[in-house]
Amino acid sequence: MTNSANPLKNDLLIRALRHQPVPRTPVWLMRQAGRYLPEYREVREQAGDIINLFKNPRLACEVTMQPLRRYPLDAAIIFSDILTIPDALGLGLHFVKGEGPQFAEPVRTATDIAKLPQIEAAKDLGYVMEAIQLTKAEIKQSVPLLGFSGSPWTLACYMVEGGGSKDFSQVKGLMYREPEIMQQLLQHLTECVVDYLLAQISAGVDAIMLFDTWGGVLTEACYQTFSLAYMQQIIERIKSVHADIPIILFTKGAGLWLETMVASGADALGLDWTIQIDKARAMVGDRVALQGNLDPILLFAKPDIIRQQVADVLERFGHGSGHVLNLGHGIQLATPPEHVAVFCQAVAELSPQYHT
Amino acid sequence: MTNSANPLKNDLLIRALRHQPVPRTPVWLMRQAGRYLPEYREVREQAGDIINLFKNPRLACEVTMQPLRRYPLDAAIIFSDILTIPDALGLGLHFVKGEGPQFAEPVRTATDIAKLPQIEAAKDLGYVMEAIQLTKAEIKQSVPLLGFSGSPWTLACYMVEGGGSKDFSQVKGLMYREPEIMQQLLQHLTECVVDYLLAQISAGVDAIMLFDTWGGVLTEACYQTFSLAYMQQIIERIKSVHADIPIILFTKGAGLWLETMVASGADALGLDWTIQIDKARAMVGDRVALQGNLDPILLFAKPDIIRQQVADVLERFGHGSGHVLNLGHGIQLATPPEHVAVFCQAVAELSPQYHT
Repeated sequence: MTNSANPLKNDLLIRALRHQPVPRTPVWLMRQAGRYLPEYREVREQAGDIINLFKNPRLACEVTMQPLRRYPLDAAIIFSDILTIPDALGLGLHFVKGEGPQFAEPVRTATDIAKLPQIEAAKDLGYVMEAIQLTKAEIKQSVPLLGFSGSPWTLACYMVEGGGSKDFSQVKGLMYREPEIMQQLLQHLTECVVDYLLAQISAGVDAIMLFDTWGGVLTEACYQTFSLAYMQQIIERIKSVHADIPIILFTKGAGLWLETMVASGADALGLDWTIQIDKARAMVGDRVALQGNLDPILLFAKPDIIRQQVADVLERFGHGSGHVLNLGHGIQLATPPEHVAVFCQAVAELSPQYHT
Repeated sequence: MTNSANPLKNDLLIRALRHQPVPRTPVWLMRQAGRYLPEYREVREQAGDIINLFKNPRLACEVTMQPLRRYPLDAAIIFSDILTIPDALGLGLHFVKGEGPQFAEPVRTATDIAKLPQIEAAKDLGYVMEAIQLTKAEIKQSVPLLGFSGSPWTLACYMVEGGGSKDFSQVKGLMYREPEIMQQLLQHLTECVVDYLLAQISAGVDAIMLFDTWGGVLTEACYQTFSLAYMQQIIERIKSVHADIPIILFTKGAGLWLETMVASGADALGLDWTIQIDKARAMVGDRVALQGNLDPILLFAKPDIIRQQVADVLERFGHGSGHVLNLGHGIQLATPPEHVAVFCQAVAELSPQYHT
């Protein structure tokens, strides 16, 4: 964590999340440590399975640092997987080429849920904490390090479906048929996430992001009951221990629900690219900061188009602090690495005028 | 078409789309002729490949009629596939078990696009027109028959990706890199869709639905340029020939953009389940009717939950005409057929109070 004896050299992200004045808009990219970088692919090849990569603290630290060496980013995010918790719960996480994550043991009944163990994150997910500690040592307070977790609903999606899904019929079917059972699962996961994030903070992360990748597949009422309520609980419990830790809440596809999300207690809301950030700011005012929100596929475009779209999002957000520039979802595998440089450069050049 | 010599016996759908008074809210289900029905699965098995089913006018007519025999629905929709146009363009449509539609020849370059033939729907898609004629004869004006087409953007998604996609990186990459080439493709598809829908109207359909399944993966600005503009053109050109044909426009995931969609000239907007219909009605007023918008997975719930959610959507829409009850997307394979009866029954019982 940020401490007064050894403060962050670049604290733009933290300041923007707190609506404090900044000289320019901070920038980072979701999934910035990833397959679009040749040096990442090299480490990944060394590691073999991606599980060997995120479970190896030294390699996880290495790939976390890689994008910082290339680009003037204002934050790092610890390299890990969204499914570490279900893996620690013994569901048998594995990755099938071309199909993404799968679980040997999907969770679909009250009995399945009752059998889920309690986890102790500091121990059972010790490899994540070790990666954080190594990275904090290596990063030398140059920029903040973000920790993260999947939201309970999003973890439940993978656990009940047994992997990714197109229609979420298993998990939503369970929710509609047996809401109490779903809530037991979500409460169990909430306990895990709180414990996991507290352990990450103890290990040294400077801010937290909650990824609710699949909250947007719900109706508004179900989103509030089955996703947002648990994230709100997590934020409250984290903040009751660490009042100052900034928390970013990201639900993909939730542009219509931003008003409700403000009540979560998050410091910032992550936006995907489907909502224009001026409209989002009009909805939430200065009650939360906003992070986003360029289409990841935009980075496939020619440099002048990328610059033009960075200019557009900065102009739409307008003057003042409270904006973290980012993509609206993870950076794509096929992104030309030099386009990320264009993107960062554009933010550095074009954003100071909005902070005078 | 509805004609004065032999009017529709049940014209609730047409009246609701026109905001004319109705005694109760009309109801139908997207993909109501589908795999959740055992009698559909029987015909499908007979036909073998699904392509043999939708290209056989007699079988297409049969499965179109099946749900009307079971349920008191207020409309039929011609059984067909969203990808008939790309198939007619010679892209080699085929279906891979568990992976959905694929094209042998994806369209990715200016050269690919220049090679696309013009189609003459009445001839090249004659099997659809024949299915419509057979169905109109069999349905005997009991309820209206809907025709449909995929939107140009949605067809382009499949054609450029070569099938379904998670991230639409090919089609959006092309759009960002070479917008003029993408627009050539979209204009070519627009000509095809206009011709296709005019032929469907000549063959007898009483109303039209445009399915823009993938418009919601765009930014708002790209949606307007690359999807909505072409749908608007289609609607104008159809209406210039058939001023009275009601047109429903459905873009999945477009709850934030309803205001803009009103300008399309559509009579009604289809809503998915992520927007509450009272908010949608507040946005669009009485300028368009609304269709929707229950979560298809809701039909997995117990009957009392289904009834409760039907009551909720009716109450949210409130009094007056201009509402067509439907799901927010196609009905799911695993839906218990008896739950569809519960759904229709609930609409019949609970809706009249909103039309007094």
